[in-house]
Amino acid sequence: MKLKIQKEDFTRALQSVQKVASNKSNNLSSENGLLIKAINDNIEIQANDYDMGIKTTIPGIIEESGEVFLWDPHLSELTRRIASEEIILTKSDSDSQMSIEGGKLKYRYMTMNTEDFNEVEVVEQGYASFTTDSVILKDLIDNTSYACATDTSRPVFTGTFLDVSGKSLSMVATDTHRLALKSVTLDQPSTGDIQAIIPGRLLSEVARQLPTDVPVVVKITAVRNYLAIQFGNVYIRTRLIEGTFPDYKRVIPTEFSNIITIRRSDFTAAVERISIVAKDAQYNVINFDMADNQIHMNSQDPDHGVVEDSVECIMSGGNPLSISFNGRFILDVLKHCSKDEIFLKCRENSPMLIQDKDTGNCVFVVTPMRAR
Amino acid sequence: MKLKIQKEDFTRALQSVQKVASNKSNNLSSENGLLIKAINDNIEIQANDYDMGIKTTIPGIIEESGEVFLWDPHLSELTRRIASEEIILTKSDSDSQMSIEGGKLKYRYMTMNTEDFNEVEVVEQGYASFTTDSVILKDLIDNTSYACATDTSRPVFTGTFLDVSGKSLSMVATDTHRLALKSVTLDQPSTGDIQAIIPGRLLSEVARQLPTDVPVVVKITAVRNYLAIQFGNVYIRTRLIEGTFPDYKRVIPTEFSNIITIRRSDFTAAVERISIVAKDAQYNVINFDMADNQIHMNSQDPDHGVVEDSVECIMSGGNPLSISFNGRFILDVLKHCSKDEIFLKCRENSPMLIQDKDTGNCVFVVTPMRAR
Repeated sequence: MKLKIQKEDFTRALQSVQKVASNKSNNLSSENGLLIKAINDNIEIQANDYDMGIKTTIPGIIEESGEVFLWDPHLSELTRRIASEEIILTKSDSDSQMSIEGGKLKYRYMTMNTEDFNEVEVVEQGYASFTTDSVILKDLIDNTSYACATDTSRPVFTGTFLDVSGKSLSMVATDTHRLALKSVTLDQPSTGDIQAIIPGRLLSEVARQLPTDVPVVVKITAVRNYLAIQFGNVYIRTRLIEGTFPDYKRVIPTEFSNIITIRRSDFTAAVERISIVAKDAQYNVINFDMADNQIHMNSQDPDHGVVEDSVECIMSGGNPLSISFNGRFILDVLKHCSKDEIFLKCRENSPMLIQDKDTGNCVFVVTPMRAR
Repeated sequence: MKLKIQKEDFTRALQSVQKVASNKSNNLSSENGLLIKAINDNIEIQANDYDMGIKTTIPGIIEESGEVFLWDPHLSELTRRIASEEIILTKSDSDSQMSIEGGKLKYRYMTMNTEDFNEVEVVEQGYASFTTDSVILKDLIDNTSYACATDTSRPVFTGTFLDVSGKSLSMVATDTHRLALKSVTLDQPSTGDIQAIIPGRLLSEVARQLPTDVPVVVKITAVRNYLAIQFGNVYIRTRLIEGTFPDYKRVIPTEFSNIITIRRSDFTAAVERISIVAKDAQYNVINFDMADNQIHMNSQDPDHGVVEDSVECIMSGGNPLSISFNGRFILDVLKHCSKDEIFLKCRENSPMLIQDKDTGNCVFVVTPMRAR
């Protein structure tokens, strides 16, 4: 094999497959690594493990076709720092060493037997598929995946639920203490309904790779036990979590005693100040007392002190209300709101709904702590 | 006690004493914390431990004088985030709680008995003293302290040697594998000779605090077992290391077979590339072969591969030379050079001297690895 490729293209491809290629949780060592395959005028880079498979193509000149299976943790950084724009990859069939050359640098390393690599299988047809764009998809993932459980005792909660029917697409994640839901309307209806639970950390890796400078078309195809995500010259296959996701529509509260409108920046700054003390207290508890168009907050760390602060708001309806939340959950939600003003919709001892004012497509729910 | 002070002044004072106040290596718990002392129109903030004492004053209005000894890890961050410019500190004599108020925030926390705090002793007269400025002193520290040993088995090497005689001031640090020396000429001679070993990590803390936007006068006074460093409204006392620092002038090589002039950026980039592989090899070894106005470098990581690169240079005198160094030590030195071109002065099996071209006041020495 002998290839002439641009450093920039190779670096981008390596960054794309890097995480899967270096998956240490994978004990099939034969799958730890990446495959470079140069045949029929096509240079493909692949990595594959139990959770995720990824395949990308790069432009370049194939002076001699061939394929190489290798694992080298230094390759991505070394390539990035090469002083020339063009780099040359060479491996003779009789030698198990491959070399990479660029500028005056030459790096030679051992390769493995290509037969030990399981290639990423590309399925064109699944039971349903739809298209959206990379900016929309990244936004859906970013606004929901953070609410996934990290505790793996109930696997369905470690994933984000993808719920597609006709032109309606929703993503939902919950760890049972808080829930994040974002919905969009597709330009074209899906070819069929999809209900799939995608592991949260795989979605984060997908989000990292989605181009957002310019929106690109993303095609998602659902197969029985995995999802295929295609954009640009990247093809990703992600494992799904088996099980039934709870009926999230029933969890979202619809009746409230108080609807509060508050400036997001003021509220965030106050919750952040209180959290400096609250974060060392058990469960990060912040008490909120809402009355007279003010939210008064307090928290205490028994080893240090008591902190209180308050923020003005507009309260519509209802009597004064006292309710406690985990401060970290509130800050997580505030980070994902985007408008200057937000709504806090609440009722005593009931989950609170937080959303940007005047937009209904993104909803966050936080369960209160036990009564004080 | 009741004080009205500017948030900015208090935050800066807290950041100044924070590290000493929170010193966890100190097992005299009574000294863990800080003292706020407001008497005679003077607001002083102090922290003190075995290694270092620091005292700073801030402007403000003393409505009621008094003093408070407290320890609270949240105080600095909380103060920084307060929404108002002015903050109010209050503690009544009958109450052990102190409160800080600013904007709508109120934070109350326990204080300790002021009698348990050992105040920082200020000595005006030592056996010798001199003045310099903050920019020069910070530069001296930054260019030398990095070479201190972290291994504490030979304490003198964990410190930076301050060598002052007349108008000549040198700082030197070495861990026996590499040495860094920087010298300056003082505007006014020191009132006496000073030879003191200052713990490297204390000097780093001093360097962190030295203002560098505008140079300020720094007065250094040597007392038998400590050094007093004064600048602006800050007074710092640092412990010294007992023992005799080796005669560093004898360690610096003066005879060379090869003097090489090389572009610092090219050399740094190449050493960084080689280091990606070398850093995983034992002792980070990089082999340098100097010949024909080229430095050829190579390194190998037995588990991965072999990397080689080369850089053009100007060699004056001498035959080809092969020598090996710890790549990290070379990179550490290159970070502290500043000119476009540097000198590498070497001889077979001998320490290499590295310095900026055409400036002799800053010298770095690196000991080679055993012959290959």
